[in-house]
Amino acid sequence: MVKYIGTRDLQAYLATHPLPQVIGGMLAYLHHDYLRWREFDKTARVASHSAQGVIELMPISDGRLYCFKYVNGHPANTAQGLLTVTAFGVLADVASGYPRLLSELTLTTALRTAATSVLAARQMARSDSRVMAVIGNGAQSEFQILAFHHQMGIEVVRLYDTDPAATARLMRNLRACSGLQLIPCASAAEAVRGADIVTTLTADKRRACIISPAMLEAGMHLNAVGGDCPGKTELHADVLKAARVVVEFAPQSRIEGEVQQMPADFPVTELWQVLAGHAPGRSSAAEVTVFDSVGFALEDFAALRYLDEQVDARFTRQLDLIPAMDDPKDLYGLAVPATLWKEQANA
Amino acid sequence: MVKYIGTRDLQAYLATHPLPQVIGGMLAYLHHDYLRWREFDKTARVASHSAQGVIELMPISDGRLYCFKYVNGHPANTAQGLLTVTAFGVLADVASGYPRLLSELTLTTALRTAATSVLAARQMARSDSRVMAVIGNGAQSEFQILAFHHQMGIEVVRLYDTDPAATARLMRNLRACSGLQLIPCASAAEAVRGADIVTTLTADKRRACIISPAMLEAGMHLNAVGGDCPGKTELHADVLKAARVVVEFAPQSRIEGEVQQMPADFPVTELWQVLAGHAPGRSSAAEVTVFDSVGFALEDFAALRYLDEQVDARFTRQLDLIPAMDDPKDLYGLAVPATLWKEQANA
Repeated sequence: MVKYIGTRDLQAYLATHPLPQVIGGMLAYLHHDYLRWREFDKTARVASHSAQGVIELMPISDGRLYCFKYVNGHPANTAQGLLTVTAFGVLADVASGYPRLLSELTLTTALRTAATSVLAARQMARSDSRVMAVIGNGAQSEFQILAFHHQMGIEVVRLYDTDPAATARLMRNLRACSGLQLIPCASAAEAVRGADIVTTLTADKRRACIISPAMLEAGMHLNAVGGDCPGKTELHADVLKAARVVVEFAPQSRIEGEVQQMPADFPVTELWQVLAGHAPGRSSAAEVTVFDSVGFALEDFAALRYLDEQVDARFTRQLDLIPAMDDPKDLYGLAVPATLWKEQANA
Repeated sequence: MVKYIGTRDLQAYLATHPLPQVIGGMLAYLHHDYLRWREFDKTARVASHSAQGVIELMPISDGRLYCFKYVNGHPANTAQGLLTVTAFGVLADVASGYPRLLSELTLTTALRTAATSVLAARQMARSDSRVMAVIGNGAQSEFQILAFHHQMGIEVVRLYDTDPAATARLMRNLRACSGLQLIPCASAAEAVRGADIVTTLTADKRRACIISPAMLEAGMHLNAVGGDCPGKTELHADVLKAARVVVEFAPQSRIEGEVQQMPADFPVTELWQVLAGHAPGRSSAAEVTVFDSVGFALEDFAALRYLDEQVDARFTRQLDLIPAMDDPKDLYGLAVPATLWKEQANA
């Protein structure tokens, strides 16, 4: 049997385990796994492109556990009431090849992405950061805001979205969060003004310029989450030139991240190097820093490990995805029980 | 919701749908999809190797449907009472990226492999074939025998396995099958003698020589199923030299199949070419033919299509692997219901 965590199970878990605590828990798993960077077999993700979008498989292994995530990206889905991005994943034992956990990852990806953003910002943003701008108030925005509020001490969030209804939904969803001031703004430039941290979460599948060089202020940290596939960027190239740029996995980020705009030798630092102390996340209070985040398989690995270890049996089910057998060589006996041998073999 | 077919569901389906009929049904789907060969986006499989075995993801798409199979291969598993090979797969809609079916594929792989063997043999074996040798009497053997008995008119099966208990299990499982004569043999050479078709299903992960040139007889068809990964072969190289060789997908078979032993320009024909009438499966009654089968993603695609279309709702369940949402931009509302906004955001 394979352990299963579906949407309902995760909802039930989150009803008794507050979101900031769960994000904090995942953050610890992420930190632990990023420090083991060299132990991972980092395979490229396998993409199947179509006119409507992309379906990807993202496998990774540390030699003891293996996981993959299935994730799609279909920008036109929302017009049909469907999610742009859905995901699920499997954690398996390398020694036997048997899957041990199948889990929803649509919600979980939002949690692990917020946790990853904080993991980078703890090393890269100024420690006295209190004001964050959030450009793009879609599906991921509340998770980012709660994570930065609880883990980084952000008290004021300046909001902008081309769709005012998105900002209104965000403010409604988070209105009960005490100690957090939410300020809707009329433009990205207005939202960014005075911010210590700028989080970009836009979804347009094109080269956009959400942040221009004129909007930068000394000491700003940019948490660039929205640009995550070829042809989809959010930052002006000159913003990258002016900043210290940290990525997750350089070979992938040079194809999918903001740095796809830059030459192949544009200097980037990998997040694990910063976390391990091999490179600084920030060199001065005035430096501009960019975390060019695209999402990496190691983050799903850490999230699945968290779910496998932290979500107790009350919130999981057992699924007969893989047969349990008395005699593993008798697959036929599994397909056709002895009582049916005669009629099934002769039909 | 995603449709789900687990081990129990497939067992229930097979309890009312005889195995030969189900294999015959899959055979029709396989034939249909192999004739559409050029419509498929044939991605390479992604393997994660370890000392104990391999975990692979096999994706493929025809532009309308996408599927992948998760499959492991761990030869030492049986010592722990586990299966050497387990598998599951997902069928998804390319237009939305949403998965539509999650299914067990451990049993199903055995069914589709038997169906693929018959699909090739119908074009390659002599039509008056009545005697088959089966070398290797493990998990897949009964399925192959039933398929060849019902679809190809095989009446006599000569059996050999290095483990006599495996042969005994096979004979017990199929003893109720009328019109089928099962003859245990003392060696592979004895089993092969006088056979019209020779099916090799051995599992050793090494270069073996199950069939040597001296064992060949005029007009024989070899259905070589067991050699399916680098370093694992069953036929002597001279057997291949003496035969017309058909493979599933040449780039994959030259790495994983019997033809891995041959130079890169060794002539092979792809199965779809034979099925489409572009190339003969056999040129004379005396020719020796080899179907060098390794298993290809298109076969799982056809099997998943069969399951999706033919297994009715009595035998499927609904799984909340992907969330259903009123507002696809309100992921936070899915994670934290309005009644919990206050306590969850402030915990």
